[in-house]
Amino acid sequence: MGGNDKILLAHGGGGRLTQQLIDEYIVPAFSNASLNDLGDAASLDLSSNKICFTTDSYVVKPLFFAGADIGKLAVCGTVNDLAVSGAKPFAISMGLIIEEGLELAAFKTIIESAATAARAAGVFIAAGDTKVVEHGSADKLFINTSGIGTRIPGLDVGFSRIAQGDVILINGSIGDHGMAILAGREGLRFESNIQSDCAPLNGIIQTLYEDDCLRPAIKFMRDATRGGVAAVLNEIARSADVSIEIEETKLPINPAVLAAAEMLGFDLLNVANEGKFIAIVQKEFAQKALEIMRSHPLGKDAAIIGQVGPQGDETIVELATAIGGRRIIQMPYGRELPRIC
Amino acid sequence: MGGNDKILLAHGGGGRLTQQLIDEYIVPAFSNASLNDLGDAASLDLSSNKICFTTDSYVVKPLFFAGADIGKLAVCGTVNDLAVSGAKPFAISMGLIIEEGLELAAFKTIIESAATAARAAGVFIAAGDTKVVEHGSADKLFINTSGIGTRIPGLDVGFSRIAQGDVILINGSIGDHGMAILAGREGLRFESNIQSDCAPLNGIIQTLYEDDCLRPAIKFMRDATRGGVAAVLNEIARSADVSIEIEETKLPINPAVLAAAEMLGFDLLNVANEGKFIAIVQKEFAQKALEIMRSHPLGKDAAIIGQVGPQGDETIVELATAIGGRRIIQMPYGRELPRIC
Repeated sequence: MGGNDKILLAHGGGGRLTQQLIDEYIVPAFSNASLNDLGDAASLDLSSNKICFTTDSYVVKPLFFAGADIGKLAVCGTVNDLAVSGAKPFAISMGLIIEEGLELAAFKTIIESAATAARAAGVFIAAGDTKVVEHGSADKLFINTSGIGTRIPGLDVGFSRIAQGDVILINGSIGDHGMAILAGREGLRFESNIQSDCAPLNGIIQTLYEDDCLRPAIKFMRDATRGGVAAVLNEIARSADVSIEIEETKLPINPAVLAAAEMLGFDLLNVANEGKFIAIVQKEFAQKALEIMRSHPLGKDAAIIGQVGPQGDETIVELATAIGGRRIIQMPYGRELPRIC
Repeated sequence: MGGNDKILLAHGGGGRLTQQLIDEYIVPAFSNASLNDLGDAASLDLSSNKICFTTDSYVVKPLFFAGADIGKLAVCGTVNDLAVSGAKPFAISMGLIIEEGLELAAFKTIIESAATAARAAGVFIAAGDTKVVEHGSADKLFINTSGIGTRIPGLDVGFSRIAQGDVILINGSIGDHGMAILAGREGLRFESNIQSDCAPLNGIIQTLYEDDCLRPAIKFMRDATRGGVAAVLNEIARSADVSIEIEETKLPINPAVLAAAEMLGFDLLNVANEGKFIAIVQKEFAQKALEIMRSHPLGKDAAIIGQVGPQGDETIVELATAIGGRRIIQMPYGRELPRIC
């Protein structure tokens, strides 16, 4: 890049330097026919015209944290939104907003991390865009990823299918991502034991829906990101018009993460995950779903954490506590953890 | 919003305030079945599995400028990328990165402007995401839009079809958008005569490809955004391995825009447009394409501006000047106009 080691404003101007940045840093990492073409849009032949389409912007701070970075996060987050919606992730777009002065070495690491995550998830980066803003007009790097996936025939997930008696599962420990970010920000000493769970969930979800008996019994899935498990369960209660009960002793929790949360005053139910999803399964198939989850590396700590209560009564989420009490789990207000993803 | 008139950090936390922002400001403006569902991904049934997919982030400064705002720009820009790629725009996603402290009134105006643009272009906002970052960590508002369109059967556009003798058309005056932004920034007095050309181009492009004779003769289209007409023509020359000649006297130019460009020292060939596209058409059909363009409101100043020269010789873009000279038009370096879109 002509001896410079930082992103310049001109890298985003649409001219020669933009071309150079794309040719030297972006296309080699993501190399595929659609992107290499560098048209205004990628031309894709999907295996079906029934698709899911999603978008998310990532503004996580810091860019690098224990277990992942913003590049991996941006790919996994969008892959996961497609997977929990009942689609097979296919193509991802990547929109970069870069602050002038970002180190090119950091940029390169992040792009390569995104490329590695895309390969792991079996998706490709079909389209991209690069903008650069002046120093002070953004915070290092923001990434938007949008994604397209083809819907899985026979997998019908949605609030409307949720009914009393259905069982609530999660694929592992809660709050790891959020506490890894916070530990990174605060420079806490126990940092080394806390890692973001950032991972693509389409593989483990595929093992569930590929089972012909289980597929029709999967009623709903959602990844528990911003707002954590509490936000997802409250949204389910509100949207499906049901009550929900979960048991504190059943929640998979990493002890180091719990210790950090207690020290910093966070309730792990409100803390973001980036590799965990809630699945709601018809009661008769819950045990089978649990076994399948546990046989996948991303589900070895999977657990049944609760069940769906009566419809139309009180749409609340209740926690049966370890000491035998009951506590209402509210929708988080939103100010707990800015820029967690 | 509880008496507050500005965006708070908690509006992006994924909790109750995020929900409120989405329910009160975003869903009503964009109301449609996919978005109202507020799932992790929109479920779409396309009319074809052959699609185009594109993404762009908008960081324009200021947010409001003569003729448009960032909301309209974000929708039109992505619609145009799909249209010039030979697709019928169908669904758009919108990822918002908001700086804490943005006035809710400005936010509302921008969202409504985006919704109006979407209706005008015949697309809908199928998926969205909202993030808020601390004051000073972004510049008011950045918007990413990604888009999906179904490819038009029989419309085959690409660098590889471009050949010597093909004719180069544009649908109207150049540099309006860039100079409107600059006039807004500089507070120039002639501002009132300069308006961004920001507009959805899918309508005028449809009038071209709907003509059965013309459709196979359309070889390439691209909207001339960042880097202006100079960047597009240089990219064509490089990618199609051809030389290109354009005539200065044929370039449609708004006199007020030219006056501003001369005062500020800009070459309008390098200045961004947001409602202009270059079409390369087989020679025999160029006149017909011009007539069809001119019959559309967004093409009344359309012109034939040049032609494609020999292949594989010198891949340069040459301008025949008004006084009979010749000048090479280079790829802009990129530092001319930061944050123009």
